[in-house]
Amino acid sequence: MSASPPALAAALAAWRGALGDAHVVTEPAALAALAATTFAHDHGPAARLCPADRDQVAACVRIAADHGVGLHPISRGRNLGYGSRAPLRPGDVVLDLYRLDRIIDFDERMAHVTVEPGVTFRQLADFLRTCRARVFAGVTGGPADASVIANALERGDGSGPLADRFAHLCNLEVVLPTGERIETGFGRFAGTTVAPLGRWGAGPALDGLFSQSGLGVVTRATIWLTPYPRHFELGFFTLDDPARLPPLVDALRRLKLAGVISATTPLWNDCKVLPLFGGYPWAATGGVTPLPPAVRAELRARAGLGWWNGTVSLYGASTRHGLALRELVTDALGERVSHLRFERGPDEPLDADPARCGPALGVPHDQNVVTAYWRKPAPPTPPLDPDADRCGMLWLSHAVPFAGDHAAAVADLVEDEVTAGGFEPALALLGVTERVLYAVVSLTYDRDVAGEDARAAACHDRTFARLVERGYPPFRTGVQSQGLAPAGDPTYQRIVDALATTLDPAGVLAPGRYPFSPR
Amino acid sequence: MSASPPALAAALAAWRGALGDAHVVTEPAALAALAATTFAHDHGPAARLCPADRDQVAACVRIAADHGVGLHPISRGRNLGYGSRAPLRPGDVVLDLYRLDRIIDFDERMAHVTVEPGVTFRQLADFLRTCRARVFAGVTGGPADASVIANALERGDGSGPLADRFAHLCNLEVVLPTGERIETGFGRFAGTTVAPLGRWGAGPALDGLFSQSGLGVVTRATIWLTPYPRHFELGFFTLDDPARLPPLVDALRRLKLAGVISATTPLWNDCKVLPLFGGYPWAATGGVTPLPPAVRAELRARAGLGWWNGTVSLYGASTRHGLALRELVTDALGERVSHLRFERGPDEPLDADPARCGPALGVPHDQNVVTAYWRKPAPPTPPLDPDADRCGMLWLSHAVPFAGDHAAAVADLVEDEVTAGGFEPALALLGVTERVLYAVVSLTYDRDVAGEDARAAACHDRTFARLVERGYPPFRTGVQSQGLAPAGDPTYQRIVDALATTLDPAGVLAPGRYPFSPR
Repeated sequence: MSASPPALAAALAAWRGALGDAHVVTEPAALAALAATTFAHDHGPAARLCPADRDQVAACVRIAADHGVGLHPISRGRNLGYGSRAPLRPGDVVLDLYRLDRIIDFDERMAHVTVEPGVTFRQLADFLRTCRARVFAGVTGGPADASVIANALERGDGSGPLADRFAHLCNLEVVLPTGERIETGFGRFAGTTVAPLGRWGAGPALDGLFSQSGLGVVTRATIWLTPYPRHFELGFFTLDDPARLPPLVDALRRLKLAGVISATTPLWNDCKVLPLFGGYPWAATGGVTPLPPAVRAELRARAGLGWWNGTVSLYGASTRHGLALRELVTDALGERVSHLRFERGPDEPLDADPARCGPALGVPHDQNVVTAYWRKPAPPTPPLDPDADRCGMLWLSHAVPFAGDHAAAVADLVEDEVTAGGFEPALALLGVTERVLYAVVSLTYDRDVAGEDARAAACHDRTFARLVERGYPPFRTGVQSQGLAPAGDPTYQRIVDALATTLDPAGVLAPGRYPFSPR
Repeated sequence: MSASPPALAAALAAWRGALGDAHVVTEPAALAALAATTFAHDHGPAARLCPADRDQVAACVRIAADHGVGLHPISRGRNLGYGSRAPLRPGDVVLDLYRLDRIIDFDERMAHVTVEPGVTFRQLADFLRTCRARVFAGVTGGPADASVIANALERGDGSGPLADRFAHLCNLEVVLPTGERIETGFGRFAGTTVAPLGRWGAGPALDGLFSQSGLGVVTRATIWLTPYPRHFELGFFTLDDPARLPPLVDALRRLKLAGVISATTPLWNDCKVLPLFGGYPWAATGGVTPLPPAVRAELRARAGLGWWNGTVSLYGASTRHGLALRELVTDALGERVSHLRFERGPDEPLDADPARCGPALGVPHDQNVVTAYWRKPAPPTPPLDPDADRCGMLWLSHAVPFAGDHAAAVADLVEDEVTAGGFEPALALLGVTERVLYAVVSLTYDRDVAGEDARAAACHDRTFARLVERGYPPFRTGVQSQGLAPAGDPTYQRIVDALATTLDPAGVLAPGRYPFSPR
């Protein structure tokens, strides 16, 4: 439950004392902006706290615990499709970490950088570019001004070779719900040389507790970087016949298992890519939704897209190495796709084009944000702000075996269910690791159309339930999925709850935010 | 504290009821065998419990909690150099999981196998060989009859591309100290298709809690496997001049960061390798220890060893790929080592020779066990049993930055300290991951020589302290290191203690075993 008005008032007074009046925001307009999401979720926060550093974060948390006010931490609030900045519970207070935006340490030789949660993908890339570094950080497909740490902690995926982002993060500094502070891994030992270099430390490893959880506020972490390759090749391919998806997926898995492809292997269907080329064809369809098959086929042909579209990023340490990798991919995929071509990346990091090879080489971009405007009546004008512009976007992110039969089953399920719900079945199948595909459905609509919020939510919920029923659980959830997620084993839940009670006795952090750690 | 005699007697009666008399062992000779280690540690267990399955494990744990008796879980008890099978506290009861030896599930397509903790490296390799599988499991440098799961949970390292073994393990079934059972990751969701395929699940990830800890007994886990390469190359190199170690180490790190070498890059000094060629040269030294430099040089020359000796395992998905990798390694190491040659591995998994390419291709072996007999007066006769044969062996395992300057600093420190202590400075520097070297010191002696146990322990403790002081913390500890490990941050320790109290309110599992989670 949210705090009572007197408790909140007392907490606000204490926060003002700790942070200064300017950094405790209660203006209705500012709070309404924080509440705006890309789906119906009218739960605005009671305030926004903007601490400057970890000590102020600890002060905020302590005050919240003292007064029984729930805190909803955000870093840059770019959790598009999952709830953006909004707390799950109305009346909770947003703990906004954007001022913790320092790049604390960079070691090119050992290929790592230590940052605070307010550091964005763009800021980090700009920093490395300014250093003329020959190492790069993985980027997300989401907005460039998203937080690098938050994306990793939410177990977001990325382009590039270190795409399982949480697996390439270590040395967390965590403010616990009690206001105490710890460093994970080897960081607990004073004077150690290896804190930013290894994940496990000695004794039980705690990092996993602070991912997709409200068990602590991460105020610093080390991100591992990748050396810029000597010979980069980006392969593009399309598949015109959806019936041929299974052997393609199996071939991609084999290439990943064999170590030929270290980066994510993305597959996007036509509906996922079309919004990059323009808005919904209102004229051609006469206003009918969802997209009729004939118009869909026409748009696909006009954009030069296949039913499925993918890229392969190859990181050669030499030209011979790069060409050997390219040959392996050509042999494996050539007969399984409709078109396959390669483009060589630039030799110098500074020359990477954001729109082409860039994302695979650490250049973030915002090109995907426009897809949120797909169903809007007119093209957007910059700056794009899908939350404020009442774009409708609900994401479903489910884990699927990296195998052709399962990929086809998910594609069919999404095609049926989302189309039946009145929306375009936009689906990405992302081979982030060797054995799991991240299936990401982007349910896109116009919140200004009467009834669409409710129809989209219903379609989201049905699709979510059917995916779970087929054995494809969520790997990441937004505030829209609270109450939908399968409860799973009650003993497991009890253990998570017990750990939460131990770490957060006042139940102060992200109450209810994660459907798997309710309190 | 150990249990009182009446409590123990009551617990024994209950365990006999649960497991049958034959599986509750209290014969003094059997217990003495469990107490035997490769160093002075005269803490025998009060009994040995041999459950047949997870339900019996849960029964054992519940009875222990009811009666306040500490349990020391072992899987195969081959924790050589770290305490073998012995509990930390005298009078605790060994929970021996060797009867949980089922290979539960194997999926060649998705490259994973699910096993119980009693399954050994040899058993798993034999199973895969019998299946004529074209995938293989990473092996350890330790005994082939060690437990695959226990090695991974202790964060042991291995040969082959999935050498950071704990990073390639998932889907743990854990019997908690209360006797409850959970499955980690996606396994908590009934009917899920992805439990053996991904590590994180949804919500906070708990796996790390059950590694190097007494927070649960893992009764099943999924191990990821690697496809057999199309073109395998094993490179051997030596370095005659120890002053040239730093650039070699830096070159190896760059090769790993660039993705050229996916497997562990081991470096062994002469003292680490010499025991494979024979026992201590008692005649040539006239009985003097430690090994005089002149004799050391002579032995090194005779065995064809360098001061440093290493291998590089290259996994080509095609011949062109394998040759491109070999060229990269030749270019990077050629001028930095004294000798470098390559040997091509067999095309067929069944042809891998255990003594050559085998370990990098999943063929376990026992060839290193003989090194425990180095200081014995005569060569051992099979079967080798270093614990029973009173071999002296104390391991120190510390984390060091994967960088030339740090590698040289550690090598110098070990050379000085261990030689001054009267032993051979046997050191391995293992590049298991891209940024950390596992520095493993093997302090080897003869327990039958009067005073050696104490001298070795003193040398171990001094070396341990000096490594920590220089910023190189332990990444794995044995029962000999209890009390030595740096306490680190007290807040962190308090959190670990609180989690331990939450999960194990009776303090029943592995009491005191892990210096980082004391209770």
